Amino acid sequence: MEKNIEISLLFDFYGQLLSDKQHEAVMLYYNDDLSLSEVSDIMGITRQGVRDLVKRSEAELYEYEEKLGLYRRFEEVGNSARTIRTLAERILSSDTDSEKLASEIIEIADKLYEQEA
Amino acid sequence: MEKNIEISLLFDFYGQLLSDKQHEAVMLYYNDDLSLSEVSDIMGITRQGVRDLVKRSEAELYEYEEKLGLYRRFEEVGNSARTIRTLAERILSSDTDSEKLASEIIEIADKLYEQEA
Repeated sequence: MEKNIEISLLFDFYGQLLSDKQHEAVMLYYNDDLSLSEVSDIMGITRQGVRDLVKRSEAELYEYEEKLGLYRRFEEVGNSARTIRTLAERILSSDTDSEKLASEIIEIADKLYEQEA
Repeated sequence: MEKNIEISLLFDFYGQLLSDKQHEAVMLYYNDDLSLSEVSDIMGITRQGVRDLVKRSEAELYEYEEKLGLYRRFEEVGNSARTIRTLAERILSSDTDSEKLASEIIEIADKLYEQEA
């Protein structure tokens, strides 16, 4: 079984929707990066039991993202934030056309705002 | 029964997590702004049945927000976007200290970026 980096990210978003047992298994396996056997010892269930819990949790986390797409939307927020930062840095570091850069910032801010709505 | 404006907003975020019947009832009652009786006619269930569906949906939507807080986070994104827009407009409309304004934009963009992480 391979660990999937995306699961940690989706877990940050939707982890609270998992059952307590699922939450614990994914936390130990992904966030604390333990092995199935180590999680098995801690939780007092079989290694196969842990594997099943984790697999089911992975499927549910993907399903939440499929339905809600909130992780993807927040990623877009992050991209916009980075672009705004870059444009503002260029205003800071040069005497070139800050009006044009400010206009670009406004355009991105407006898209961000729509994003929220 | 009073209609709650917040429900429409939460429905935009978490509506896909409701059952099909709940989804339909909330859509008709909140998004299309029909009365309980009108929804009852359309869905072919009693008025009390609609009321129960809507009440249960409202509770679930609040629970999702309680657990995930994603609506609140997106609201913060919207506030940041508006502030960035205002600052950039000031760069556009005046010859006053655009460096200071750009620095403020960077600060907000950084917080937005953390928001995403």
